[in-house]
Amino acid sequence: MNRAPEAPPIASRDNPRVKRLRRLVHDGSAYRREGVVWVEGDHLCRALLARGWQPQVVVASPAAQALVQAWQRDAGLAPEVPVWTLSEALMAQLSTLESPAPIACLVALPAVGGVQAGVPTVVLDRLQDPGNVGSILRSAAAFGFRQVLALRGTAALWSPKVLRAGMGAHFGLSLIEGLDAAALAALQVPLIATSSHQGDWLHTARLPWPCAWLLGHEGQGVHPALMAQAAQTVRIIQPGGEESLNVAAAAAICLHASAAAAAGGL
Amino acid sequence: MNRAPEAPPIASRDNPRVKRLRRLVHDGSAYRREGVVWVEGDHLCRALLARGWQPQVVVASPAAQALVQAWQRDAGLAPEVPVWTLSEALMAQLSTLESPAPIACLVALPAVGGVQAGVPTVVLDRLQDPGNVGSILRSAAAFGFRQVLALRGTAALWSPKVLRAGMGAHFGLSLIEGLDAAALAALQVPLIATSSHQGDWLHTARLPWPCAWLLGHEGQGVHPALMAQAAQTVRIIQPGGEESLNVAAAAAICLHASAAAAAGGL
Repeated sequence: MNRAPEAPPIASRDNPRVKRLRRLVHDGSAYRREGVVWVEGDHLCRALLARGWQPQVVVASPAAQALVQAWQRDAGLAPEVPVWTLSEALMAQLSTLESPAPIACLVALPAVGGVQAGVPTVVLDRLQDPGNVGSILRSAAAFGFRQVLALRGTAALWSPKVLRAGMGAHFGLSLIEGLDAAALAALQVPLIATSSHQGDWLHTARLPWPCAWLLGHEGQGVHPALMAQAAQTVRIIQPGGEESLNVAAAAAICLHASAAAAAGGL
Repeated sequence: MNRAPEAPPIASRDNPRVKRLRRLVHDGSAYRREGVVWVEGDHLCRALLARGWQPQVVVASPAAQALVQAWQRDAGLAPEVPVWTLSEALMAQLSTLESPAPIACLVALPAVGGVQAGVPTVVLDRLQDPGNVGSILRSAAAFGFRQVLALRGTAALWSPKVLRAGMGAHFGLSLIEGLDAAALAALQVPLIATSSHQGDWLHTARLPWPCAWLLGHEGQGVHPALMAQAAQTVRIIQPGGEESLNVAAAAAICLHASAAAAAGGL
């Protein structure tokens, strides 16, 4: 235990620590300036500890101190990590969840290396919706992809909303954002583009492994200039007709097909 | 044109019409008591008109009157449908969107018939998240499913959030909610359950058509008593390991596999 349990919790909205947390929580891209990420709730924080990450700080309500001790005991939280105790009311104001979480972490934004060659990859071309982006990260992790590249114009990958939808996938993937299309040349795996109206039917296509899937903007799809760089274009059978698929649903279908092909099953 | 264009817009929060709209918008299951559904935004409203539905009322800001005329001209809106004009400020308060929509419809909740036998079906077992439920409806429509049955405890299918995520799928599907598991006996198609840890691998399974997919609660999965009724259980290959899949992503993968099997491709 590294804190005095008798210390009164921070209760003022004007406390400098609280002001900094508020910026991080409510401005989805503030982590880029601050170099630190707000990770909220027991599930997400345990996911990062399970991957061997350590937070810079744990932020907890008075009632959540037992949770901090449980993390130290069985989830790998290092005892030297400082704990900021905030009043229940302040924690509830900070939370982005409908049922406010009594606990959160600040973690350093991981240092970004270069694009890795030869690795199963997902490329996000200007995806807008944080829920879609998080869901795609989660599918990417589940299906054995190791790297996600977000082209300029994509939703901020480490925003609270994307983290929540990612359900811990962030901590097991190599993530790079703000890239230009030229960066994809370093991938050295076949680029497969998804399209709503052209290309091979996914369910009968032969898929290479490793590969990089190119997923496009919710309304506009993959940019034509990128589409032209693809080694293969696939589309998804839609016997229901004109309905369009959600991009995260389309991504799940494509990434699963890749995993199945890699396992020799398709 | 059935309204006097000179009539001043409703501007009072206390107007009885506005109060009723506010209930419908902000209480996700109020449509059950009122028998009427709030459908927001040009895209969703055009989707219902395209399916041959007519609203009871169109609700529009003064600036959106041109949109009403466009719907009458080229989207099939009947000229006798009344238009309520609300001030911009009131429309913005009612909207559930980040960019408030200047137009919406009230449509009668469709009369619910019985469970249809022999029809491709999706069964939702206590799904909680409106975004997931809407995304699954969208995938169901795209992949040729015609009926969605929501067991008691599932998120309200016609709530504004589910409608938004469904992107118009609601208007092409037969939807029944509040069912007990006993109602599934009427389906007369094989029930296929999804599981995270048992059953055939989806990518090598032989799938019947028509069939009914059973999708379970985000945390707990399909209820064991329902699982026992399934003719087949399938699971999705996850070489990434312990990561769990989002239920809407899993649903997209399963429903696509069914559509591909029906097309003779898998």
